[in-house]
Amino acid sequence: MQRPGEFEIIRRFFSGQRVADVNTEIGIGDDCAVLNFTAAARLALTTDTLVAGIHFFSDTDPTRLGHKALAVNLSDLAAMGARPRWALLALTLPENDPEWIAAFAQGFFRLAERHRVQLIGGDTTRGPLAITVHALGTVDGRPGVKRAGAKPGDAIYLTGSIGLAGLGLRIRQGAYLVPDEEALDRLEAPQPRTDFGIRLGEFASAGIDVSDGLAADLGHILEQSSVGAEVDWESLPLSAGVGRYVADSGDWQMPLVAGDDYELCFTASPAYAQAIASAADATATPVRRIGTIRTGSGLIIRRRGRPVELSRSGYLHFVSGEARR
Amino acid sequence: MQRPGEFEIIRRFFSGQRVADVNTEIGIGDDCAVLNFTAAARLALTTDTLVAGIHFFSDTDPTRLGHKALAVNLSDLAAMGARPRWALLALTLPENDPEWIAAFAQGFFRLAERHRVQLIGGDTTRGPLAITVHALGTVDGRPGVKRAGAKPGDAIYLTGSIGLAGLGLRIRQGAYLVPDEEALDRLEAPQPRTDFGIRLGEFASAGIDVSDGLAADLGHILEQSSVGAEVDWESLPLSAGVGRYVADSGDWQMPLVAGDDYELCFTASPAYAQAIASAADATATPVRRIGTIRTGSGLIIRRRGRPVELSRSGYLHFVSGEARR
Repeated sequence: MQRPGEFEIIRRFFSGQRVADVNTEIGIGDDCAVLNFTAAARLALTTDTLVAGIHFFSDTDPTRLGHKALAVNLSDLAAMGARPRWALLALTLPENDPEWIAAFAQGFFRLAERHRVQLIGGDTTRGPLAITVHALGTVDGRPGVKRAGAKPGDAIYLTGSIGLAGLGLRIRQGAYLVPDEEALDRLEAPQPRTDFGIRLGEFASAGIDVSDGLAADLGHILEQSSVGAEVDWESLPLSAGVGRYVADSGDWQMPLVAGDDYELCFTASPAYAQAIASAADATATPVRRIGTIRTGSGLIIRRRGRPVELSRSGYLHFVSGEARR
Repeated sequence: MQRPGEFEIIRRFFSGQRVADVNTEIGIGDDCAVLNFTAAARLALTTDTLVAGIHFFSDTDPTRLGHKALAVNLSDLAAMGARPRWALLALTLPENDPEWIAAFAQGFFRLAERHRVQLIGGDTTRGPLAITVHALGTVDGRPGVKRAGAKPGDAIYLTGSIGLAGLGLRIRQGAYLVPDEEALDRLEAPQPRTDFGIRLGEFASAGIDVSDGLAADLGHILEQSSVGAEVDWESLPLSAGVGRYVADSGDWQMPLVAGDDYELCFTASPAYAQAIASAADATATPVRRIGTIRTGSGLIIRRRGRPVELSRSGYLHFVSGEARR
């Protein structure tokens, strides 16, 4: 019998509860939960853990690690269309190294201040290095942007570019030898798309952040929206370095399956093309259309005009033999 | 130079932020943070991490561990006078063992259902066994019960009894040989004082849950309230087993310094004695007066009528040589 992966674990063991609170608008299974205290004030909540040796190299610069621990949570809030407001920090440290902690706090607070996030609590414990951040934001005036909601005919958009963190990982592992600071920056200090995310509710029919790889994360939108999609490989926004890596290695799948880019993938009716361009312009966020939602199910990737098969999808905890950063 | 302990870490590195959200009523430094969306709906938030080998034995029954991971967070909400409503669960697992996870989920959900807590999100990651729960509750109609607020002349109360988890730990370590199921239950499956905690705001001037030992936790109330206190050792509520342990070992300090009991310690004006007795009665919670708040600072313990000195206070992460469960 095959052992269940993360999504199966969640489904099998943590979806059968019998409690349903009257103020819960969105529960388990999206980028954030949403509580609706009043129609004008919805609270979006998310939590993400980074474990040394699994999600990051143990010798990662602590300033970058403090940044990333908050960034991955702000990315979930952005995907929900929420404005980040508060965070709690659960920090497990193997030893008490004041310099390390000071550097970690500097990275955490620098990002927090940039997006006006207040740290309101936490827990410091001894143990193997791991960081769990819990982030809260508000969604004003409209419901949060869910994974469900994409409709046939909707355009599929992506912010920024993908494959950079995957490239950074390969460089960090010594598996690819062309230096690329931009790729290492993406891997170790990703920038959440917070400013654009706050605008997402104006036009997006569905949205997610790209943490497990575009194919896997867009796949969640398709499943939860009961639709299919077509994406042209040539439309994928790739940095010059990622383009060179693909040309050098022939590994055209990497930008679709590598995780940790923390860009936003969302769908919208074609009627919103101008509104999306305005929001992109106002927030200085590159946004590109990469495909179209179709009826049916599953993701079709076209490369050089022909459908291609992915030999691997996004990382699944416990199932893949490939260690995750 | 002495290395800083947990409280010093928090103070030094995590209190200097420059962001203050307009809806933050209580930030870092209490049992919970409190956000005030409306006067009638305040949200209390807390997070606590349990790490294998530090906070619990790695072979702990997973059903009990699932219970305890939630219980320690509900205890923080109870100390704030909040009604628990929601939880998020960040679970880091070394391997994927469906039986273990099913048992963990059973323990978590059984306690969640008892107190009407809905799990609304989480994260499952691979790594050394650790559990971070984030719990949220509401405080209706009045501000949360803080650590600050105790006044000279206030009575000091304690729910239940203390020292049981400390006794359970000694039994589990083989350091004390008299079997005591009640003590092991307290250590591995503490019951948060949720029903009584919801009433706390009716009468308490200050409150805290006893997680690091009564002397340390009452010490936080005294510091943050700028007062002192006197406690009679003979008034401490001890189980028969804890009483026997003290008699056998001569270790009278254990009930004051051992952690993990998750009882509530609170202060209240003597005028509320009847209200406290009514709340205790209505929620079937043993509550006993153990001392009095005084002017000045520091905790004076009297035993057999004479002030005694504690040779150790509650556990400090990183500082104490004594491993924590």
